[in-house]
Amino acid sequence: MNEKIKYDGLTCPIPKSDYNRVLLAHGGGGTLSHQLINKIFLSQFGNEILNTLHDSALINVDSNRLAFTTDSYVVHPIFFPGGNIGELAVYGTVNDLAMAGAKPLFISVGFIIEEGLEIEELWKITVSMKLAAEKANVKIVTGDTKVVDKGKGDKIFINTSGIGIISPDVSINPVNCKPGDKIILSGKIAEHGIAIMSARENLEFESAIKSDTAPLNFLVEQMLQTSNKIHVLRDPTRGGIATVLNEIAAQSNLGISIEQEKIPIAEDVKAACEILGLDPLYIANEGKLIAFVDPEVADKMLKTMRSNEFGKDSSIIGVVTNENPKTVIMKTSIGSNRIVDMISGEQLPRIC
Amino acid sequence: MNEKIKYDGLTCPIPKSDYNRVLLAHGGGGTLSHQLINKIFLSQFGNEILNTLHDSALINVDSNRLAFTTDSYVVHPIFFPGGNIGELAVYGTVNDLAMAGAKPLFISVGFIIEEGLEIEELWKITVSMKLAAEKANVKIVTGDTKVVDKGKGDKIFINTSGIGIISPDVSINPVNCKPGDKIILSGKIAEHGIAIMSARENLEFESAIKSDTAPLNFLVEQMLQTSNKIHVLRDPTRGGIATVLNEIAAQSNLGISIEQEKIPIAEDVKAACEILGLDPLYIANEGKLIAFVDPEVADKMLKTMRSNEFGKDSSIIGVVTNENPKTVIMKTSIGSNRIVDMISGEQLPRIC
Repeated sequence: MNEKIKYDGLTCPIPKSDYNRVLLAHGGGGTLSHQLINKIFLSQFGNEILNTLHDSALINVDSNRLAFTTDSYVVHPIFFPGGNIGELAVYGTVNDLAMAGAKPLFISVGFIIEEGLEIEELWKITVSMKLAAEKANVKIVTGDTKVVDKGKGDKIFINTSGIGIISPDVSINPVNCKPGDKIILSGKIAEHGIAIMSARENLEFESAIKSDTAPLNFLVEQMLQTSNKIHVLRDPTRGGIATVLNEIAAQSNLGISIEQEKIPIAEDVKAACEILGLDPLYIANEGKLIAFVDPEVADKMLKTMRSNEFGKDSSIIGVVTNENPKTVIMKTSIGSNRIVDMISGEQLPRIC
Repeated sequence: MNEKIKYDGLTCPIPKSDYNRVLLAHGGGGTLSHQLINKIFLSQFGNEILNTLHDSALINVDSNRLAFTTDSYVVHPIFFPGGNIGELAVYGTVNDLAMAGAKPLFISVGFIIEEGLEIEELWKITVSMKLAAEKANVKIVTGDTKVVDKGKGDKIFINTSGIGIISPDVSINPVNCKPGDKIILSGKIAEHGIAIMSARENLEFESAIKSDTAPLNFLVEQMLQTSNKIHVLRDPTRGGIATVLNEIAAQSNLGISIEQEKIPIAEDVKAACEILGLDPLYIANEGKLIAFVDPEVADKMLKTMRSNEFGKDSSIIGVVTNENPKTVIMKTSIGSNRIVDMISGEQLPRIC
């Protein structure tokens, strides 16, 4: 029973027998997301730019190298400790541009509002976006507003797309990864995901855990001024650092070895993860980046990162290896080795 | 009772007493949409690029003049006579770029999928987008997929953003409008809106009325080759030709005079509008444009437009006047004059 879906002569690579409807996990950033994106979207839209699947597309317009990116934000709830959907939407797209080594310039905003959203909530979100754009030094230059009937949306969804410019000497690409490259993480993990979770479930921890949502473009600018021997930059949002490291291992065809003890995590976040039975490696961050840098410049880069407010807890968490290609291995606190795999979905849906 | 909404020291220009929730009509493209956009979004995001409120933002990157645009598509139903949400999302953004006189180059796609969407429907939409992108000669270079819980979306919403390049000798801007400019409409009106309406309400007309969704970039390219004395280009989507003409009259501070008899409309569409009690001037189009051109080149332009498959029914429908600034006046078929006003919302919500 391998019934095929066909349209206009084109056959869907996912047979009907696998599943015939989109599941929540298809949006989780894990293996099911990858399957949907590869088999459905890439099989049809694929081209040399899209196929790289970077956070930003690298496009050439005349002599300019531009980065172009898009993200829709469907986070629930729309207000959470440390931020709201508005600033998240601005910083998220700013960060996707920065991860291509681009200087973010212009942002578009598309609102899909559910009928009945309070004007007061919309005002708060709008003001937060304005302040976030100012903080990140980007201009909101174009927009669109749609309203859908009550019950056909969830308060507000926001799409932001962005354009940035990349300096000619910057080359950030997973294929640049080399054995020996040091892996630097810019700070404490899992804060955004746990903040959303606690807001959603009305959980109270001893201290309020806040989302780490922040613009990373100035940190990246400083890093590129320190050295352009940065091979990869990624922000570990949906799916956490585990997912990002697995993606880079797969794309570079190299192994990744990390040390659990080197991964910064706040005590309260760690405790919350233990209570909730969640693995912080898979939890979303919204103000952190992972850099793969030439070993020669690693110490200097670490110093630069620590000098920036958004990188003050930076740590070298691991190294790229020839062994175990396409695999992420973590030396645990008790000295054993653990394979850090992709998971099929997101532990927390609608995290961003 | 003029209670104010404040956030972070910033006061919302809409007092609480006006209304305290977003209404469906806020998304209709009429006066309520304009109020929401001006008072909430522009008051905060405003800058010299955004404030022009064109279909595309005109941005300069180094020596290049680029157009940048975004649109979210929430059309209901997602499949309708003549098309589906996928190709609509591609052509809509292609057309917004073309209306700036730009050559569309790159498109981003952001999907917000409701859990439970049939993979078969997603496949059809994806294939349609691929074919539409090929037809319009644009590349889909970046994307994003989110899935929301069942009951928190409506099958699928699609955001497309786009980048195009504008040749140095092109200057399309409502402020370029001059008294005497001829107004050319590229074909028959109201087909998209009536097609959606008939699909939504399961109406059967004598003949099947199809959406006019189509890419207009090659038509615009041909028009610009004919002459660059094109002062304004707009595609009359949400709100129809009445809304677009009112916007241009307001922005240029001039009057617009049109003749009802010159406005192309298919007999079956006209009949459907009469049955449904709808005014075709306010009904959305998805494959039509309105051009304001220098009177010297009007006849030549009309000839060019008629030679293109998407402009074969083009007609000069009116002229720009010094009289009645900011007002659209239509000479009706029976010889009287009618003021064609803005309406507060859209007659048909979720038309695109």
